Amino acid sequence: MDSKKRYELLFNNINQYNSGDTGITRIAYTNEEQTCTHAFMRMCMAEHLDIRMDSCGNVIARRQGKVDGLPPVVMGSHLDTVYQGGKYDGVVGVTAALEVIRRLNEKEILTDHPIEIISFACEESARFGVSTIGSKAMAGQFDKNRYRHIKDKDGITMEKAFALCALDYNSVDQASRVNEQFKAFFELHIEQGPVLINNKKKIGIVTGIAAPVRLHVKIKGTASHSGTTPMNMRKDALLGASEISLALEKAAKDEEQFGTVATIGVLNVHNSAMNVVPGDVELKIDIRSTSLPSRERVLVRLHETIGHIKENRMLDIESVEISSEKPVLLSEEINDVLINICEEKKFSSQIMQSGAGHDAMNMAKLCPTGLIFIPSFDGLSHHPNEYTPIDDIMIGIDLLEEVILHYSKSNE
Amino acid sequence: MDSKKRYELLFNNINQYNSGDTGITRIAYTNEEQTCTHAFMRMCMAEHLDIRMDSCGNVIARRQGKVDGLPPVVMGSHLDTVYQGGKYDGVVGVTAALEVIRRLNEKEILTDHPIEIISFACEESARFGVSTIGSKAMAGQFDKNRYRHIKDKDGITMEKAFALCALDYNSVDQASRVNEQFKAFFELHIEQGPVLINNKKKIGIVTGIAAPVRLHVKIKGTASHSGTTPMNMRKDALLGASEISLALEKAAKDEEQFGTVATIGVLNVHNSAMNVVPGDVELKIDIRSTSLPSRERVLVRLHETIGHIKENRMLDIESVEISSEKPVLLSEEINDVLINICEEKKFSSQIMQSGAGHDAMNMAKLCPTGLIFIPSFDGLSHHPNEYTPIDDIMIGIDLLEEVILHYSKSNE
Repeated sequence: MDSKKRYELLFNNINQYNSGDTGITRIAYTNEEQTCTHAFMRMCMAEHLDIRMDSCGNVIARRQGKVDGLPPVVMGSHLDTVYQGGKYDGVVGVTAALEVIRRLNEKEILTDHPIEIISFACEESARFGVSTIGSKAMAGQFDKNRYRHIKDKDGITMEKAFALCALDYNSVDQASRVNEQFKAFFELHIEQGPVLINNKKKIGIVTGIAAPVRLHVKIKGTASHSGTTPMNMRKDALLGASEISLALEKAAKDEEQFGTVATIGVLNVHNSAMNVVPGDVELKIDIRSTSLPSRERVLVRLHETIGHIKENRMLDIESVEISSEKPVLLSEEINDVLINICEEKKFSSQIMQSGAGHDAMNMAKLCPTGLIFIPSFDGLSHHPNEYTPIDDIMIGIDLLEEVILHYSKSNE
Repeated sequence: MDSKKRYELLFNNINQYNSGDTGITRIAYTNEEQTCTHAFMRMCMAEHLDIRMDSCGNVIARRQGKVDGLPPVVMGSHLDTVYQGGKYDGVVGVTAALEVIRRLNEKEILTDHPIEIISFACEESARFGVSTIGSKAMAGQFDKNRYRHIKDKDGITMEKAFALCALDYNSVDQASRVNEQFKAFFELHIEQGPVLINNKKKIGIVTGIAAPVRLHVKIKGTASHSGTTPMNMRKDALLGASEISLALEKAAKDEEQFGTVATIGVLNVHNSAMNVVPGDVELKIDIRSTSLPSRERVLVRLHETIGHIKENRMLDIESVEISSEKPVLLSEEINDVLINICEEKKFSSQIMQSGAGHDAMNMAKLCPTGLIFIPSFDGLSHHPNEYTPIDDIMIGIDLLEEVILHYSKSNE
């Protein structure tokens, strides 16, 4: 069977594990996801890999190398999805890794370094509001006491969810591999954005993963009658919010060269009515960049704008930073290798950043890490219409195979 | 007893009819409101007025004049409130009218024209979503078949609510007085806005009642990931909404000389999330003026702005006019008389418009009509903290007494 046909069967096989009608719903630590994960483990066994599931639910499938004691070259992603998600997010990286192994087995290539596939547990925050659980645990970043009692929407705690999968929450620390050596880690993932599609490129080589600073802004004006309050006597909280949103857009656009983005995703007008001037508005703001100085400049301009609006519109505006994460820069050396392979193989590619988090950002704490993007149709993700043509995935797999071969040759 | 003390007792007496803990809740056609209305009828009887309740629940209390066959001079307002409303909205106009009668009785003044107090039924839209029911019926504007089956929040139809007050809904047409003659109608009301308070005036003489044109605007962009969508590839519906709101404010401010106001009271971001660029936003817009051309200019600029935003931001924007009412202009002749009295009595006053609807706008269809405002503390209304000092109400009563005396002298 040719590689493309074989891959397509594998891809469709994985996506039959689904509890929803619309798109794919394969939430972490549920029956669908566990059944899917165990099916994947059997497929890995069929390829003669040594398989194990760690105490966090990560699947580790290992192909032994020729030379004893060399660190493994690792590739992987995740099989869990959001509610009503698509078929590609995560799945592509896990299934591509298995296809790479199948190719090596078919060609009877034995590498110096061992090669691992990892299917990470619970990458999506959909269930518990915490993302990349499995790779956090592997990188020793799992906050056991903080996460233990977090509940999903049905009131099931993370600890209970582990138990229902026969995982011992108290042993989760054993999933940490901080004391092991790794040669390199690679994740193939759909872009989840429109850059490659718009630029007509097949491969994105990711230099860094942007991290958000998030703010909760509360704007208090005075609710008053829309008919009886003259324009110059209003304290309209919604107009203040409108000024903030346009100023924030401008500030982010001025940082476009750094790939910085800023979004007001949530705006609520409390006690809104058609005949009431809005007196109470809240905003949730997300600013991301791989460049901390650039992100900081946007933040400074946001606060300047808020200062002006407070004064000019006589509004009370309270702004609270609810989280501030650090961007993760990926391996330049690995990216140079990826660029060379793309040039050699004539894969159209571009250097870019990732605006979304990935397991790769935790693995980057353990070893040199590469993140490879393939195009997302319409930039869509976390959506039933998420789509990447199989031919585009095959280009990603070709690149992944080449870079795995490159790093799994012994140079010691 | 002096007038002020007597009035204060009356005012407090009326406001003891209340079904709520917070503010005043005396909803139309309920036990509280009917008990209050019947108490008011007994007070009118005690002042030797001829009283009747019409088929819509309006109370008409008549003081006979000296000269047979002259049309009555009428004053009134309403006793119903919104949920958790204040003590002043409506009550002031009805109780002031009774105090005027008490003063005439005390001074044993017999006027040429008869004088009527009307306590209008169901002025507030709080119960059935339709305002000024009683005065609509009196002015022959009651849409019997349309209103019959409208339900309140407990599922009680307007017809049933009438029946529970021993009113025959089918006879509501008998409340029409379109074939009668009236000398003039006067309504004393709290401003429900901040103009008099801010300008330190005691009396507002209302030239017209603004009417709203209302629009429902739906903005469709593309929901996308806040991290992975570069600023220049976004179709952010909320940014489109922000531009509309600021442009609408500017358009209304440019019409300030006409008292035109424009408000976005409702803005909903559908499927909003902190990490999603908003793709679906709806707005509800209310534009009011006593000047139709001014209101039209704001509307034209709104549509121009929407046109630009559609093009520049690649958004789909659909705008639907959900209602468009005509402003009501009040009697210039009456206002001249009111101005003269204010000057004579040294009441600080100003000409203004009403941004809210009142029973006066229906009565203006029957006869020359005057609407007199007194200050609202903080511009508050439909709120438990609604407040007007008794001394300010007394100034309103003095003016009302004078203008009633002026018009109830025979000049035929």
